[in-house]
Amino acid sequence: MTPYSCMTTKELEEQYEIVKAQYDRVKAQGLKLNMARGKPAKAQLDLVSDLLTALTTVEDCFDGDIDSRNYGELAGLPSARAYWADVLGCKAEQIFVGGAASLNMMCDIVSRAYTHGLLGSPRPWCKEEKVKFLCPAPGYDRHFQIGEFYGAELIYIPMTPTGPDMDMVESYMSDPQVKMMWVVPKYSNPDGIIFSDETIRRIAALKPAAPDFAIIWDNAYCIHEFKGEYVPFPDILSLCAEEGNPNMVFEFASTSKITFAGGGTSCMAASEANIQYFTGVFGVQMISYDKVNQLRHVKYLKDKAHTLEIMKRHASVMAPKFETVSRWLNTEIAPLGFAHWNDPSGGYFVSLYTMPGTAHRTWSLCNQAGVVMTNAGATYPYRKDPNDSNLRIAPSLPPVEELEKAMEVLTISLKLSALEKLLGKL
Amino acid sequence: MTPYSCMTTKELEEQYEIVKAQYDRVKAQGLKLNMARGKPAKAQLDLVSDLLTALTTVEDCFDGDIDSRNYGELAGLPSARAYWADVLGCKAEQIFVGGAASLNMMCDIVSRAYTHGLLGSPRPWCKEEKVKFLCPAPGYDRHFQIGEFYGAELIYIPMTPTGPDMDMVESYMSDPQVKMMWVVPKYSNPDGIIFSDETIRRIAALKPAAPDFAIIWDNAYCIHEFKGEYVPFPDILSLCAEEGNPNMVFEFASTSKITFAGGGTSCMAASEANIQYFTGVFGVQMISYDKVNQLRHVKYLKDKAHTLEIMKRHASVMAPKFETVSRWLNTEIAPLGFAHWNDPSGGYFVSLYTMPGTAHRTWSLCNQAGVVMTNAGATYPYRKDPNDSNLRIAPSLPPVEELEKAMEVLTISLKLSALEKLLGKL
Repeated sequence: MTPYSCMTTKELEEQYEIVKAQYDRVKAQGLKLNMARGKPAKAQLDLVSDLLTALTTVEDCFDGDIDSRNYGELAGLPSARAYWADVLGCKAEQIFVGGAASLNMMCDIVSRAYTHGLLGSPRPWCKEEKVKFLCPAPGYDRHFQIGEFYGAELIYIPMTPTGPDMDMVESYMSDPQVKMMWVVPKYSNPDGIIFSDETIRRIAALKPAAPDFAIIWDNAYCIHEFKGEYVPFPDILSLCAEEGNPNMVFEFASTSKITFAGGGTSCMAASEANIQYFTGVFGVQMISYDKVNQLRHVKYLKDKAHTLEIMKRHASVMAPKFETVSRWLNTEIAPLGFAHWNDPSGGYFVSLYTMPGTAHRTWSLCNQAGVVMTNAGATYPYRKDPNDSNLRIAPSLPPVEELEKAMEVLTISLKLSALEKLLGKL
Repeated sequence: MTPYSCMTTKELEEQYEIVKAQYDRVKAQGLKLNMARGKPAKAQLDLVSDLLTALTTVEDCFDGDIDSRNYGELAGLPSARAYWADVLGCKAEQIFVGGAASLNMMCDIVSRAYTHGLLGSPRPWCKEEKVKFLCPAPGYDRHFQIGEFYGAELIYIPMTPTGPDMDMVESYMSDPQVKMMWVVPKYSNPDGIIFSDETIRRIAALKPAAPDFAIIWDNAYCIHEFKGEYVPFPDILSLCAEEGNPNMVFEFASTSKITFAGGGTSCMAASEANIQYFTGVFGVQMISYDKVNQLRHVKYLKDKAHTLEIMKRHASVMAPKFETVSRWLNTEIAPLGFAHWNDPSGGYFVSLYTMPGTAHRTWSLCNQAGVVMTNAGATYPYRKDPNDSNLRIAPSLPPVEELEKAMEVLTISLKLSALEKLLGKL
């Protein structure tokens, strides 16, 4: 195969006819496939469904003297706090165990920052003239959505292979209106990047002008390797404390991709001062979170070491899917030289960079052929990809045989949109 | 026994010496008893712990085609929405099934009203000069706390035997700053009053000046009879719709006192327009609530009829406790004529009215003798009981033998504080 960039117009036109015919053929199949969201597959959920019977008797429901079935322990069951401290490498006192969704706690933090302020806020953010959030992108669309919902100005920070462009992040620290940065530090969504040690150190050492600048450290994929062994990762709370920024970071994790998606438990890890402050704040809205499910999870997952064994089961289902995505892209697209993508060892996504200016068109072609993908642009603030290039592939949900078909449609659509672009048809 | 009001000062002084000696005796026992919060007893939790095994296999996890273990169905599983519609007598489309706590959804409604507004809001409430909440009292302290947290002005509305003083409520409807009213319409907290049909009709027919006036209809005890048969209760959504106020009411219920306290599921019932609006709003913070627990509850509780049978089990534990409270008060206090209390058939509380000016002192005497009760004043906005008279007795948690001791302490403390008051010692 010749790279498109080395082809004459005539050759491109010939290719266009061939690829157009391929596209019409797959479109005619009337497929209905979904690679849109990071949802676990049924096979994964089945592999962890012993969770359902981890707690079956009255006696099982006790965590020491505490009856998980009754009100109390707002910050979480002691065993659940200890479990998360083990997973994240921090102290149990720095853990607040919440409900089924870490996103909900992130949104609560932002919501209360707007109406009441964080520790150190001179005033509630709704009283500020303007509030700005730094948004390394491509990133997680739901992070951006929360910022947009609350009217923050979203500032695009490019991602590099080692994490956010830290020169740019640091340059924004002099602006007191910059109040937050949102990151997924390990197996970033969607690039699958693990932030480098240097990036992490520079983040911990930021000197923000805003006294209440906060980092949402969404460690959603903290133990989510599907290839190779677990990659150790530093405790951001300690690093921030060492740099004199103990209250700057709010870390989040959940079991949504360990046990059941949306049916697990979540945690926030933060300084003891922040945990104390937010236990007070959350005490207004909650008597206590679902401790029965917390205990069910502790009994099933046990500790970090045992959870890593469970993650191997997920890996056994996930790895072949990522290999399928890689194979199609490497075979069909790599030789044509007009696109690139990452090859992550963990997380839930493959980040694909189409020929600039063709991401929306590629998405649309896939969609018309029955393959649903995350909207083009969704991985950028305000859904505006400056290069119209990034697409997020979420291969976890469909079985491999469906994924094969979806990847055929995607690779054909990639070629067709690139050819349309090169031939001035877009 | 002679009523205190018929005693001479000398007789009162004699009584004081006797009661003081009784108090010193019980205080010396070093008791540690709790009648502070509406927590179910262990015996109740044990009676419903088959919930733990209502969902044990992969096959159990499906609600029709929907896998409860995966993301999706933000407004709740279809079966869970149908369940709550059955319980509350509304339509499934009017139900949003949330997480473990209805209080959390109430707080979310207020939070989003402040930052974004409700349907029909001219502007977010944080942009209003002032926002006022009508607070029928005695009422639920956590309702008042949410209003206070958001800086609303809390307006005290006296409770009558048929519900809130509706003349006063209606008189406030001309004030556009009045944005909310919070009520527990069946077995009100703490008075145990069932709002009369006329009160309910007048509430549904309110003509508020604020276009976004909202009623929090916290139907926490909708099926919570512990004496006699289930008392049917009208569907407030239909009544509001008939009166041209379809979007005015948000009804809440939960299984916190049906299955596990803080480990159950909750629902909001509202107009379809409100459900649509808040599904959008909640979609910012949640991918979906815990549907596994929703399905677990549907399989265990089945429907309203079966749930009412389960409530009979709770009644078998609750009724003797309320009888114990009644017996002590009727035997020890009624003949003395200085206090009164309600005698509810459902809910979780006995509302006790001490001699005016002695509730704090009674609470304090109990506390010093090792009996913890809800703080005096807590049942009023800003914790200010205008008569310093109301105490909330929550007899559900302690076993009957502990309750006997706690009631002995309470009745002695009631007498002692009344005698102190009458003798000018307070």
